Amino acid sequence: MSPREVRELIRKEKITSPTSGMCRGHIQANLAIVPKDLAFDFLLFAQRNPKPCPILDVTDIGDPEPKIMAKGADLRFDVPKYRIYKYGELVDEVNNIEKYWRDDLVGFLIGCSFSFESAMLNASIPVRHIEENHNVPMYITNIDCTPAGKFCGKMVVSMRPIPYHLIPRAVQATSRFPQVHGAPIHIGDPSQIGIEDVNKPDFGDPSTIKEGEVPVFWACGVTPQSIAMTSKPELMITHSPGHMFICDPKDEDLAVL
Amino acid sequence: MSPREVRELIRKEKITSPTSGMCRGHIQANLAIVPKDLAFDFLLFAQRNPKPCPILDVTDIGDPEPKIMAKGADLRFDVPKYRIYKYGELVDEVNNIEKYWRDDLVGFLIGCSFSFESAMLNASIPVRHIEENHNVPMYITNIDCTPAGKFCGKMVVSMRPIPYHLIPRAVQATSRFPQVHGAPIHIGDPSQIGIEDVNKPDFGDPSTIKEGEVPVFWACGVTPQSIAMTSKPELMITHSPGHMFICDPKDEDLAVL
Repeated sequence: MSPREVRELIRKEKITSPTSGMCRGHIQANLAIVPKDLAFDFLLFAQRNPKPCPILDVTDIGDPEPKIMAKGADLRFDVPKYRIYKYGELVDEVNNIEKYWRDDLVGFLIGCSFSFESAMLNASIPVRHIEENHNVPMYITNIDCTPAGKFCGKMVVSMRPIPYHLIPRAVQATSRFPQVHGAPIHIGDPSQIGIEDVNKPDFGDPSTIKEGEVPVFWACGVTPQSIAMTSKPELMITHSPGHMFICDPKDEDLAVL
Repeated sequence: MSPREVRELIRKEKITSPTSGMCRGHIQANLAIVPKDLAFDFLLFAQRNPKPCPILDVTDIGDPEPKIMAKGADLRFDVPKYRIYKYGELVDEVNNIEKYWRDDLVGFLIGCSFSFESAMLNASIPVRHIEENHNVPMYITNIDCTPAGKFCGKMVVSMRPIPYHLIPRAVQATSRFPQVHGAPIHIGDPSQIGIEDVNKPDFGDPSTIKEGEVPVFWACGVTPQSIAMTSKPELMITHSPGHMFICDPKDEDLAVL
């Protein structure tokens, strides 16, 4: 099925599950929506933190159509599950945001590591959470994002266990895709970036780390949710982790090389 | 001399010339300054047009210090020559912008092709305008930028003549640097992108195209000046073409690979 057809099923709430593996080869994106009064600060935050927040599309004020990534789509309905944050509190989780939508909202689509996972698989690098069929493990680190206006907070990372001999290849394969988090931000000892127990992720599910494998960490598009909790904006709407927006262009369209 | 030392001389107006070749290896940047009411639209314009407008730094409102690219620098004094555009008209060209500065201005530093020229030279690719010791030729094309809010207009490109056998290498060498315009946007026939006479650039000076060479075009950070002329914002301050802001980090810090 094409991205448009899958979005149609999501819009009708016939699909409300995580989107991992759907429309393989097509970009999936994280979502963050804020009121226009906060939009400059948020866009600036993303610009200053391109590893966790690489921007793929920004909607016009009050317009729910992300014209660059999916002409005709509607950000109010086309994500399977949304989270509503008010003043930093998660207050609701819903399948559409019709009742929360306002004429002053601006939507941001942010690159997602699902895109570079295709590149990893193509390069014969195993992706554990796909093998184990669960959500990728994500952690709030001790790494401060560069603040911008009202937004500040810690970087969220995702983790994939990689066999020693494939680590350079994993760096190469993901470096080609700076718009979907690019190269890892940390390789090895989780405590170096403030992760106490790699088996207890803050979001998603734990992945098995086998003998001879090293945990490798990439900046993660769930960072805006951590930022929402720290910065406490009046309103921020995001996707629910793993429940992404499916875009029309392909992952390879984002490769710089 | 270090970038800080050269900026010091520029600040004292002991240097007012084009900056090509200064502090080799360090990033040089295009400048655009707009009032905060236009800052979101401009940042969004840059985000939607990352080839001509790759953002390296954005100052806080009213603060002339670009903290990421040059701690302690002052965008009011540290560029050798500035252009003042009011409602799309070039109204002044000055060595500092003290009298035009306002508490509501936001400065944008935008990647410049000088950075990838070092990479080209390192890869043994000739750079004609350096050989001929003149400013790079720049052209207003027929390529529409993706509009954002109040900003729209045509893309400006720079041109370098490349021998046939080095064209793939030139694509590779510049692809590593998406934050300084990245890969070419056009190779060959200038008329395809609306350039009538490649010997009559809109900005800068013409470069000799020798037998066996092809004109290769890269998106150019002078695009905001074309945008200013088309979009007619109340105020936009830019550098004068070739008179760049010299940053502390090195070109290679921007390489994705």
